[in-house]
Amino acid sequence: MKKIVLLGTGNVAHHLALRFQEVGVPIAQIYGRTLHKATVLAQRIGSDATDNLKELVQDADLYILAVSDNAIEPLLQEIMIQNVSDVSLPPQSSFAPFWVEQDRNFGTWVHTSGTIPSTIFEKYTSNYGIFYPLQTFTIGKEPDWTTLPLCIDANTAAKRRSLEQLGQLLSPVVHHITDTQRATLHVAAVFVNNFTNHLFHIGQTIVENDGITFDLLKPLIQETVAKIQLHSPETMQTGPAKRGDTITIEKHQIFLKHYPLYHKLYELMTKSIMKKYK
Amino acid sequence: MKKIVLLGTGNVAHHLALRFQEVGVPIAQIYGRTLHKATVLAQRIGSDATDNLKELVQDADLYILAVSDNAIEPLLQEIMIQNVSDVSLPPQSSFAPFWVEQDRNFGTWVHTSGTIPSTIFEKYTSNYGIFYPLQTFTIGKEPDWTTLPLCIDANTAAKRRSLEQLGQLLSPVVHHITDTQRATLHVAAVFVNNFTNHLFHIGQTIVENDGITFDLLKPLIQETVAKIQLHSPETMQTGPAKRGDTITIEKHQIFLKHYPLYHKLYELMTKSIMKKYK
Repeated sequence: MKKIVLLGTGNVAHHLALRFQEVGVPIAQIYGRTLHKATVLAQRIGSDATDNLKELVQDADLYILAVSDNAIEPLLQEIMIQNVSDVSLPPQSSFAPFWVEQDRNFGTWVHTSGTIPSTIFEKYTSNYGIFYPLQTFTIGKEPDWTTLPLCIDANTAAKRRSLEQLGQLLSPVVHHITDTQRATLHVAAVFVNNFTNHLFHIGQTIVENDGITFDLLKPLIQETVAKIQLHSPETMQTGPAKRGDTITIEKHQIFLKHYPLYHKLYELMTKSIMKKYK
Repeated sequence: MKKIVLLGTGNVAHHLALRFQEVGVPIAQIYGRTLHKATVLAQRIGSDATDNLKELVQDADLYILAVSDNAIEPLLQEIMIQNVSDVSLPPQSSFAPFWVEQDRNFGTWVHTSGTIPSTIFEKYTSNYGIFYPLQTFTIGKEPDWTTLPLCIDANTAAKRRSLEQLGQLLSPVVHHITDTQRATLHVAAVFVNNFTNHLFHIGQTIVENDGITFDLLKPLIQETVAKIQLHSPETMQTGPAKRGDTITIEKHQIFLKHYPLYHKLYELMTKSIMKKYK
C-alpha cells in the first residue's frame, strides 16, 4: 500500500489517522464533509485535506471509508456522481467512477464498519474489502494498539493479504473475519460493551440514589474484568443466581420495586444465569 | 485491636488472613469446620488453628466471621451452645456466651457479608459490627488492597472508629456504610459484577458458536471498563440502542432468534437504554 486516502473525521478516522502516522505510513489525503475538521486532522498528521469529492486523489492504492454506517452508501453514490461528471477525467471513465477504469492499477475500497456487509461496494468497484478495528474509540483517549484486533476481509485473496500486511503495521492482532463473522462479532460487542456499560449506569443510579459514591463499585468492576483475562467467564460466574440463593434474590427484587425496568432486567438476567448453572 | 480471631477458611477469610499478616496485624487463631483447611491457612500466617468451638480464644478483641451468609446464624448459635456448657468458663457466664460477660472488656463481633444485617448479632452480643470488603475474591489471585473498599459499621460510634482504624491498616478506602446502604451496594454489585460477567459469557457463547475466539472481544471489554474510571457510564453509552438505530437492532434481533433468552435480554436492555437516552 503506497497511497492512502482516508474519508471521515470522526472517532475511528481520527485514531486511524494518528496510528498510520505513528507507524510511518503516510495518509495522502483526508476527506471530510466539514473542511475545518478535515484540515485540523490533516494538519496533525501532515496530510492534505478536502471537503470536495471532485478533488479526491484519483490514483490512491487504498480508500478507507471511516464514516458512520448510514453514510457509506450515500458517500459512494456521491463519489460516483461527482466523478462521472468531472471533465478532468479521461474519456473512458465517463460512465463509471474513476476507480473502475480498466486500464490502470485502480485502488481498493474498504470501510471500517462492524455492521455493513462488504458487498455494499459491489456496484461501485471490483476491489473492495473491510478494515474494521474492533474497539470503542473516544477522541482524546488513545486506544491500546498493541492489543487492538483488526478484522480484515477482501473480495480476493491477494487483496486480503495486502490489507493484512497493512493491518499488521498498526496492530499485531489482525484476523481474517468474514461478513457473517463480523455480524456475529457486532452482536456480541453490543452485549459486552454497550449492555455492560448500561449495567454500570444502573449500578451507579442505584447507589447514588442512596447517597453512596459510584467509586466504591469501581474496584469490583475492575476485578470482574481482570478475571476474564485469564479465566473463562463461564467459570468465573458468582452471585445469588449462580448459587440458587432465592432468599437474597427475593430481597433484591423487593429492593428493585421502585425501578420497574431494572427489576425486569434483574429477573431476566437471574433466569438466564440459573438456566445456565442449574 | 490486639487479639483477632478469624472464623472461616473460604475466599474472604483467606485473603483477609493474608492481608492482616502482610500489614503486621497478627491473627491469634483461625477456626474452620475442617481442621485441615484451618491449619493450612493458619500455617501460612503463623497462627493457630482449630475446628473446635470450645477451643475458641476467649479474650480476643475482635471475632471476624468470614463465612457464607447462611452459615452466620447457625455458627453464632453453635458458639453459644458450646460455650454455655463449657465447664472452663467462669460461673457467671453459665447462661450466656463468654463474650457477653459484663466483668471484662469483651470482644467485638463482626461479619464480612454484603447482605446480612448487622442486627443478626443482637441476641448474642452487645458489641457488634460489619467488616465488609466490597470485592470479588478468588483464591490464587491477590486483590488490589490499595483500592479495595472496606465497608465498616458498628453498633456504637466508638467501636466504629476502632474498626475504621483497623480497616485503614488494610486499605486506604474505608467507608462507614449502614445496613441499608450495604443492601443497596449489594444489589448494585450484582448488576455490575454478576450480571456483567454473564454478559461476557453470552458474548463468548455467541462468537465461539461462529468459530471466533473470545480473545477478540477482550480489548473491547478492557476499554469499556477503562472509560468509566474517568467518565460517568451515563456519558460513555454508545451503540445502536443509544443512537436509536432500529435497522441494526432489527438485524441483531433476527440473528438472536436462535438464542431465545438472549433475544429477550437484548430486547429489554435495548428498551432500557432507549428509555434513558430518548
